[in-house]
Parts: sequence; C-alpha cells; structure tokens
Amino acid sequence: QDQIAIIVNTGDDLDWWGLRVCPDIDTITYCLSGLLDESRGWGVADDRFTCLEQIRHFGEPAWFQLGDRDLALHLHRTRLLREGNTLTEVTRRIAEHLGVKALVFPMSDQPVRTMITTPDGACSFQEFFVRDRFEPEVTAVDYRSDDDVCPGPRVLEILASAQTVIVAPSNPITSIGPILAVPGLRRALASTDASVVAVSPIVGNAAVSGPAGKLMRTSGFEVSPLGVAKVYENLLDGLVADQQDVGLQERCDALGISVCFTDTIMGNATAAERLARAVLDQAKGNRNERRSTHAPAEGLTAMRIETKSD
Amino acid sequence: QDQIAIIVNTGDDLDWWGLRVCPDIDTITYCLSGLLDESRGWGVADDRFTCLEQIRHFGEPAWFQLGDRDLALHLHRTRLLREGNTLTEVTRRIAEHLGVKALVFPMSDQPVRTMITTPDGACSFQEFFVRDRFEPEVTAVDYRSDDDVCPGPRVLEILASAQTVIVAPSNPITSIGPILAVPGLRRALASTDASVVAVSPIVGNAAVSGPAGKLMRTSGFEVSPLGVAKVYENLLDGLVADQQDVGLQERCDALGISVCFTDTIMGNATAAERLARAVLDQAKGNRNERRSTHAPAEGLTAMRIETKSD
Repeated sequence: QDQIAIIVNTGDDLDWWGLRVCPDIDTITYCLSGLLDESRGWGVADDRFTCLEQIRHFGEPAWFQLGDRDLALHLHRTRLLREGNTLTEVTRRIAEHLGVKALVFPMSDQPVRTMITTPDGACSFQEFFVRDRFEPEVTAVDYRSDDDVCPGPRVLEILASAQTVIVAPSNPITSIGPILAVPGLRRALASTDASVVAVSPIVGNAAVSGPAGKLMRTSGFEVSPLGVAKVYENLLDGLVADQQDVGLQERCDALGISVCFTDTIMGNATAAERLARAVLDQAKGNRNERRSTHAPAEGLTAMRIETKSD
Repeated sequence: QDQIAIIVNTGDDLDWWGLRVCPDIDTITYCLSGLLDESRGWGVADDRFTCLEQIRHFGEPAWFQLGDRDLALHLHRTRLLREGNTLTEVTRRIAEHLGVKALVFPMSDQPVRTMITTPDGACSFQEFFVRDRFEPEVTAVDYRSDDDVCPGPRVLEILASAQTVIVAPSNPITSIGPILAVPGLRRALASTDASVVAVSPIVGNAAVSGPAGKLMRTSGFEVSPLGVAKVYENLLDGLVADQQDVGLQERCDALGISVCFTDTIMGNATAAERLARAVLDQAKGNRNERRSTHAPAEGLTAMRIETKSD
C-alpha cells in the first residue's frame, strides 16, 4: 500500500501557558487518529475546559482555548522538546502513540512565525485569527524566524520521491505559503517527478472558511481559483476547483494549467472521499515540465522567511 | 493584626510532565484559599482528571495525580519560573491571585531534593511516598541540591523578627528536616527572640498520618513526642504533645523542655482552632536561653544538604 506523508505548516505555532502548541500538526494528528472535534475543527472531541477556567484566576490569557484532554498532548510535546528532541521526532512519537498511520512532518524543525500586520501593528497569526477573529484590516503578511530555517530532515527526500503531491485546500497565504517559503522547498517541489495538484480553497470569490480570501487580496492575488493558481505559479501540474467556477475554464487554459471542476465542498466523509478520488485522477492525467523554481512575479514577492541574519 | 508567615519545605518538589510541582507550598496555598480538597488533603476540591487520563496514552507516568484545575497552577508557576522569576516571587504571586492573606515562603529558591534510600536504591520523596505508598524499607534519608542553597530572601529576617515560631506537626524528617538543613536557618531559629514551639505529629508511638514514624526510626529517633523533641534538640522553647502521651511528662522534664499535653487531633476546624490556641498559650509561657545552633548528636547527624561542591 502507498504511504501517505503530510508536510505541515508550523508558522501558526505558538507558546501558550508555557507550552508549545502546533495547531496545524495537532489538527491533522487528531483528525487521523479519530480524536478530532469535527464540529469545531480543532481540539479533541468531548473535551472539557476545566484548566482553562482555573488559569484565568492567575491572570493568564484565555482566548486560545486548550481543553483538558488536549493539554496532555501539549504537555508531552513541550517536555520532549525541552529535553532536546526535534519537532519532527516529537511529532512522529505523538502520531505513533495515537495510532496515526500516515507520516506527519513539520515543514521545519526551526520555529517560524507567520506575522500579520494590521493598522495596529504586527501580531502573530493566532492573535489575528483566534483572538481578533480575523476582523482587522490586513496590510501585510510575512514569515519570520530567529534561526536559519531549513526543511525538516525527510521533507526534501519525500518531495523528491513522491508519486503525487497534493497541495491541500488550505489557506494559500498562511498555511501553504510558509511551507513554500522554507529554503529549498520550492525548488524540491518544482523539480520533483511527482504530479503536483492543488485543490482551491476558494469557491466563487470567497474562501470556504477562514481568512484566505482576505489575505490573498492583501497579498495582491485575485480571490478566485485563478488567484490560487497564481500563488502556486510554476509549481502545479493541475488544479482542482469547484464546479461553481467552471466559467473560469478559458482563463485557466490561458494560464497553461490543467483544471478539473468538481464538487469540492467536503460536507461529509463521502464527499471528502469523492474529492480525493477526483484529485488523484487529476494527478494521473497531468505530468509536465512547466514547473520552475521562480516565485510568482507579484504578491508575497519574497515568499521567504526573514531571519535575524537578514 | 499580626501577620502570619509560613516557611515551607520544598524538598518534596518535583518536575512532572515538564511542570514544576511544589506539593507542600500548594497544599498550604490551596488550604488557605479554601480551594483544598480536604478529604484527600491535596489538590483542588471537585477537580477532574481528564488530562491525566489522556496523558497515559503518550506513555507519561500517571502515579502522581494532577487534576485539571490543579494543572492551571503548575502551568502558571512553570511559565513564570522559566521566565526567570524566583520561586519566592512566583509563590507570592500565586497566593495573591488566590486571595491568601498569610505570607507563604519557600525555604529556599534553590531546588532541594529529599532522597529516600531503600534496599532498591535511592529515589525521590514523591516516588517513595506516592508511587511506592511509603511501603519500602528505608535505610537512609538525605537532602541534596545541585546548587549552593541559601534561605529564601526574607526567611532569615522573618525568623529573626517573629514573636512566635510554630514548628508544625509535620513529618520531622522530610517536611521540617529539609528546612532546618538550609544553611543559616538552624542558626536563625536558635538565635531568634521568638518563642519556638513545636507540635508533635507523633501520638503514642505512631504518626497521625504518613511515614513520619518509619522515617524517624530509620534516622535513629524514638517514635514518640520525645523523639520529636530530640530531632528539634536545642531549638525549642516548648512542645505541644497529645494528651495520650501525658505519661511522658517526667522524661520531657528531664530533657529540659516545657511540654503541654492536649488534644492534638485536628478532626475539624473547631479542634484545629483549639489546638492553635493551646500552641499560642504554650508559646506565651515559654521563652528561654536554652537554644543553641548545635544539631542533635545522633540521627540525621548531618542535617545538611549535600551539594555538588561537597
């Protein structure tokens, strides 16, 4: 059976109550272990918030909610990281403990911070997304690190040897963008023999959920599947967009990208499986030499991580 | 109104799930804030153990139980300590947040470990006490630290200026012993003008609860109020012992210590208050110059903390 490897954004990670929290890795790990609270889309199902209620008494902030059950994971991870383990190793051990069969890899072992600039100044992604409910106007998005960032130990090898790379229908600017900004990663994606297919998180002219539309606009991209294709310019063999956007067929053809229009709304497991099959079909049909390491000409121009050595 | 200051043992402290836990400080803080689970004698009343149940899945040990509500305190403390605050400062802030009026001071800001040696080797106090339910045979008790230990910043001043010092009816070997072993503390207690009165945790020939009897025997002390007086030799002006031990009157007189025999079993708040009044009365009646800095001649001979520089 084919092995699934998932390379995950860590630009949203945060230190919270002294614990290292990795929201994207955790959502994937919980989802694949069957623990995810699917109605909320984060944390553990049937969790409680007893600790959170108590920690308010000590003046700790409470806008980022960690459930009592969820805390166990963050405590365990934080202890292992403090003992000198890499995030890659810790992520592997946690996934194993929870019975996850897919391989889950952080994009990098060096912490990266996605920063959102609003008229009030710069804040972390979680401050913007959770605390401020992505309401403020956004003037810029950038990625920062205190270290020289390199891809996680197996990330480049996995991209090189993959049969298919699926760019998930996640926020292109803050969930996929940081991954592409890890030095060496864009080149690995451009040069892999795998078929690379993205799924558009934009349906019509809005994101299915979250601030993807707003952040794409800020970064100078059209809020449409075409804008998504533009963020991933020079990287894709194919794009899967929603059937509602079938009218974009001609403009997509002009971009030189093969686009499949289908139902991309994953309302339930059946719909998700149908989309997955459509994506794999699209991947099979496309494999070309159009890819290059050039980043898009405009918007997120840098698509790089600013480090202290800059 | 008189201010109450409590100098607390930290020899039982432990790192647990990556958090710094201070059982004696916490029990006192929870007790004085009304949060204590009085039936268990530790932790927060009506707490839950959701996180503990989950953290087992990651292979973390679960024999030391931290409740979900209790976790908030340990998370907050650990974060503040990691940010460079002293345990004294962190303890003060936590007590303040919980509305505790008494001043609570760790005996020292440097971590001290009470080690219990059994035929299987040395272990921490909590491993012996909680994990092994104080069942193993004990061959030695000693106190260790990686640092040069000194008293907490206000501890000596408090002992010097106190009107009354009450040595609580706590385990003389593992709860009071480490405090007396902090360099400078025995001298401060011996030289204070305050009346120093201890309450015996031994009634008849057994501890009211816990392993005090066993550990006194190991350390060469008689398991009786006289043995307690012997552990605190040269430090006390008075001792409060249980009425059951009134037969020891003559032997106590021979020791040159003034002993009051009363009901020392604190079955409820009324009994506790009655004992407190008896202790204060005993303190008023006694003030002498018999104290000296000499440690007891036998048992816990060193009564000192071994450090790396030893």
